Amino acid sequence: MSGRLVALAGGVGAARFLDGLVQVVDPDRITAVVNTGDDMVLHGLHISPDLDTVTYTLAGVHNEATGWGVTGETWTVMGALARLGGETWFSLGDTDLATHLFRTQRLSAGATLSEVTDELRAAWGIGVRLLPMSDDPVRTRLTLGTEDDGDGAEVEVEVEVDFQDYFVRRRHSVPVRAVRFDGAEAARPAPGVLAAIEEAEVVVACPSNPVVSIGPVLAVPGVRPALVDRRADVVAISPIIAGSALKGPADRLLAELGHESSVVGVARLYAEWAGTLVIDEADRGRADEVERAGVRCVVAPTVMSTPARAATLAEVVLGARR
Amino acid sequence: MSGRLVALAGGVGAARFLDGLVQVVDPDRITAVVNTGDDMVLHGLHISPDLDTVTYTLAGVHNEATGWGVTGETWTVMGALARLGGETWFSLGDTDLATHLFRTQRLSAGATLSEVTDELRAAWGIGVRLLPMSDDPVRTRLTLGTEDDGDGAEVEVEVEVDFQDYFVRRRHSVPVRAVRFDGAEAARPAPGVLAAIEEAEVVVACPSNPVVSIGPVLAVPGVRPALVDRRADVVAISPIIAGSALKGPADRLLAELGHESSVVGVARLYAEWAGTLVIDEADRGRADEVERAGVRCVVAPTVMSTPARAATLAEVVLGARR
Repeated sequence: MSGRLVALAGGVGAARFLDGLVQVVDPDRITAVVNTGDDMVLHGLHISPDLDTVTYTLAGVHNEATGWGVTGETWTVMGALARLGGETWFSLGDTDLATHLFRTQRLSAGATLSEVTDELRAAWGIGVRLLPMSDDPVRTRLTLGTEDDGDGAEVEVEVEVDFQDYFVRRRHSVPVRAVRFDGAEAARPAPGVLAAIEEAEVVVACPSNPVVSIGPVLAVPGVRPALVDRRADVVAISPIIAGSALKGPADRLLAELGHESSVVGVARLYAEWAGTLVIDEADRGRADEVERAGVRCVVAPTVMSTPARAATLAEVVLGARR
Repeated sequence: MSGRLVALAGGVGAARFLDGLVQVVDPDRITAVVNTGDDMVLHGLHISPDLDTVTYTLAGVHNEATGWGVTGETWTVMGALARLGGETWFSLGDTDLATHLFRTQRLSAGATLSEVTDELRAAWGIGVRLLPMSDDPVRTRLTLGTEDDGDGAEVEVEVEVDFQDYFVRRRHSVPVRAVRFDGAEAARPAPGVLAAIEEAEVVVACPSNPVVSIGPVLAVPGVRPALVDRRADVVAISPIIAGSALKGPADRLLAELGHESSVVGVARLYAEWAGTLVIDEADRGRADEVERAGVRCVVAPTVMSTPARAATLAEVVLGARR
């Protein structure tokens, strides 16, 4: 492959894939369009979890054990905050905090999220071009069906919460009734996003959560039509293997929102804009059903347990499109 | 003394005096009304330098060497921020940062600065009641007369800057033409401030910068009239000794704004609302001039080089009023 490549990215799964991709493609030919629906303001700081996970991973400083933050992290500020009685449900390491201070200060000085993202990319010496899906705020909001009544019992009640409230504070262990992307209607794709999709030789949908990682990117006006136009060159990687997500709540979210938690469910969700779906060998028996959903199916090992396996998967993806 | 006591406070000088005062007066009889004109938002964080200096000092964790921050501080976040190319002219230690995260989060959750200040006071186990002068934003702004032209030469130009820009970034080494307290007209005294002044047996103006520490407190509507009403019981301590400030730019600021940089200049500035001025023994020869400014003069050692000397000064102040 000699052309440019776009990767639609969420957090950990996307970061691992990109880490494999840069082993087989010159990084400066890669543009990652990253979900910002999980972004939040906490302690006054603008936090972009998926951008940070991708950045830290490509910088080689990510914490492999936790899946977020940097390796060798210290927790001085969080410890002091705990002693003050502050909110510590969202753990922010000392080095990680510097990222949020930098981003917040630059945004308050008038920089766009795109500009700040690029400054952080450059500071970490990353070759891959990183774009937030939008410079405008889009916030993933989840309607939960039950709530702890305070006495440990679950009661039926509809409550809408922010993504990190669901994902971190409640450890995504509560059923979800609905998902929406607040602000998406008014959001514009970040500068360069649509052009990158138009000009790419291949567009990859990384093995990220279809609902809350890829979903917000698709919700930004203009992105889905741009993908539809490039459908033959869009290769998606299923984050669902044998019915389950390797990490996170993608399987439960799919089921709760009425989709099948399987490669077939993913194929049906992506068929409009993805010409090819890469599924794991564990799902070989369902390849025909994927194809019947209208998506070309490629079977390959998709579990990126090592950087070498991520690179192999990247090779498969590059050879998979038609 | 058996009644209540109010201390009008800036940063280091006030904190040292309060540290002496709690040795001779039951802390729960003391209310400190603290300058917030130096407050700033940096990296999205609400920073209250004088409140923090007073809090850390009374908590016994202040950094004696620097005059700000906590002792034994670590700088992990600042180091990481520097590597990202972030703004590091205002040094924020890791433990100190927790204070700013806590304050910012609580303010964004709807708490007032008074409430947050009291929560931090309680977290540190401080007995003295700490009140910001106002829960409304008041920002000290300084008009500078010259500016570095970028080639190292000073050129005549009027530019208005924030307090910390002047004090920290420019190390208060530039001449000041004017000072104003942006927002003061619309600010209300924090709950309890006026009542505390009315009910106090003694009101002390700590040895803080008359222009940019005591000045903002006086600029909050209602405070100066409340002090005028209690003039006989207001005891000020001169921060100027033998024409100079022990620390900071009080001497230069007084001169630049047309006042005499001396105990006499302070007496003239404070005469309307302070019945007594405590001056250092070094200024004994100017006691008569102080009295001619209409202020009763008490001569005592005012350099608080040790906690014991601070306590001695506190005893002097308590015995000084009439």
